[in-house]
Amino acid sequence: MTARIFRGREELAAVAPDDRGLAYGDGVFETMRVHRGEVPWWDAHWRRLALGASRLQIALPPARQAREVARALFDDAGDGVLKLLLSRGAGGRGYAPPAESVPTWILSRHPLPRPARGGVSLHWCDVRLAVQPALAGIKHCNRLEQVLARAECDRAGADEGLLRDADGYVVSATAANLFVLSGDRWLTPPVDRCGVAGTCRAALLAPLSARETSLAKEDVERADAVFLCNAVRGILPVARLGARRWPVHPGVAAAQASLARLHPGFRLDAPALDDLNT
Amino acid sequence: MTARIFRGREELAAVAPDDRGLAYGDGVFETMRVHRGEVPWWDAHWRRLALGASRLQIALPPARQAREVARALFDDAGDGVLKLLLSRGAGGRGYAPPAESVPTWILSRHPLPRPARGGVSLHWCDVRLAVQPALAGIKHCNRLEQVLARAECDRAGADEGLLRDADGYVVSATAANLFVLSGDRWLTPPVDRCGVAGTCRAALLAPLSARETSLAKEDVERADAVFLCNAVRGILPVARLGARRWPVHPGVAAAQASLARLHPGFRLDAPALDDLNT
Repeated sequence: MTARIFRGREELAAVAPDDRGLAYGDGVFETMRVHRGEVPWWDAHWRRLALGASRLQIALPPARQAREVARALFDDAGDGVLKLLLSRGAGGRGYAPPAESVPTWILSRHPLPRPARGGVSLHWCDVRLAVQPALAGIKHCNRLEQVLARAECDRAGADEGLLRDADGYVVSATAANLFVLSGDRWLTPPVDRCGVAGTCRAALLAPLSARETSLAKEDVERADAVFLCNAVRGILPVARLGARRWPVHPGVAAAQASLARLHPGFRLDAPALDDLNT
Repeated sequence: MTARIFRGREELAAVAPDDRGLAYGDGVFETMRVHRGEVPWWDAHWRRLALGASRLQIALPPARQAREVARALFDDAGDGVLKLLLSRGAGGRGYAPPAESVPTWILSRHPLPRPARGGVSLHWCDVRLAVQPALAGIKHCNRLEQVLARAECDRAGADEGLLRDADGYVVSATAANLFVLSGDRWLTPPVDRCGVAGTCRAALLAPLSARETSLAKEDVERADAVFLCNAVRGILPVARLGARRWPVHPGVAAAQASLARLHPGFRLDAPALDDLNT
């Protein structure tokens, strides 16, 4: 990992030990797929960052400088993952957000995750997502529920886990949104009570004519096809959920083709997706 | 603020930019009142830290070293606040907790907060606490709800705010637990669905013969007396909640006397409480 740390416009050598990101998860973040040194969805990620920052009343990083630093991290025109973390900044002790705080922001470069071979296997997580409309949708840094759920998946030997909310409705995977095919209709759960409004999810809603609707556990298990998606890995076909198996479905391949038209990193001839489909 | 940062047994100059505390609020913390260089409730705080760390499967700091560093931070035998933050440590990108992670821990010294003069004023927060039994009770670092609620209090010009859960039950203040007097009985809300099981709250349950019970908004407004408490400020008598006023109540003074017997920092002749009672 290569990381560069800033406080407002000023580059820092290190994160302050009283940063509110560390103390309270008082921040938001984005993870972006970089394709040949470019971030094709930069604007969409920046818009969601701005929405989250506005909800939490955190100042944004200087936009042009952030873009320049992102480019510099990938000046070898390589592929990878770019993470942008924005916290409210250093801020003493106590929950009260300081009246004048200068945000901390960190841009870091990471390798692409190892591609899944074939479809992924899913686990129903026991941990539920708490219903919190004030934080739903945004990609904030309070992620202990996801950490606990992800640990469950690892113990279960599954690639990913499906999370339900406190009322039993299915929301998403730990680090991806969920689409299920019912007949010829793609469905995806709403994210206004909990969950994250994923950038890849948003990009797919229109091309797939997908409908946002509440889904019960049985709706997922009965679906004709299921995929997960996020802005780093694109579309991950689901092969298995407990005892349920799904063969490769042409609807998922069509969705992958739609996504490939929207983001060159997810083209079927891109290296990671080649691997994914073997 | 003076802070010392460790990774396992090793002292560090700075927090790593990929610390999971910063990325996900993946940690727990304690704030302790220091009285003449001593932390009278160290053991109680350590037990709660251990409980939270065990729930999240985070390794504890080396106990003896943590105690020694705490002593060194207050080797002038001064009064103040000691904060211990424990995160899962550095850990790459992704929610999955690394199989072998070395925890980060930070001990920092802070001044005592400015004492409240007279009783405190409260605001009913609009933000609700999400119900999450998996995280309830422990003092974890996912505190955006408290940050949002505290910002509401500041906008309302109140000293503190009362938080209800998603079902409308009263839980606590943003940074303190709540006790209400009903006739001759002290009541306090349970903290098994959300909220923090405060160290001061725990210390007071037996001496006050307090009963844990669900409280509605009206139960608080109708109470004969109300106080907040935490391990830094002790007991804070409540004077005002919206239109409701409470005069000084002998039951609160008796509770303060009980607390003073349990922790020398909260004795009525201690400087901060002298101020509080003038």
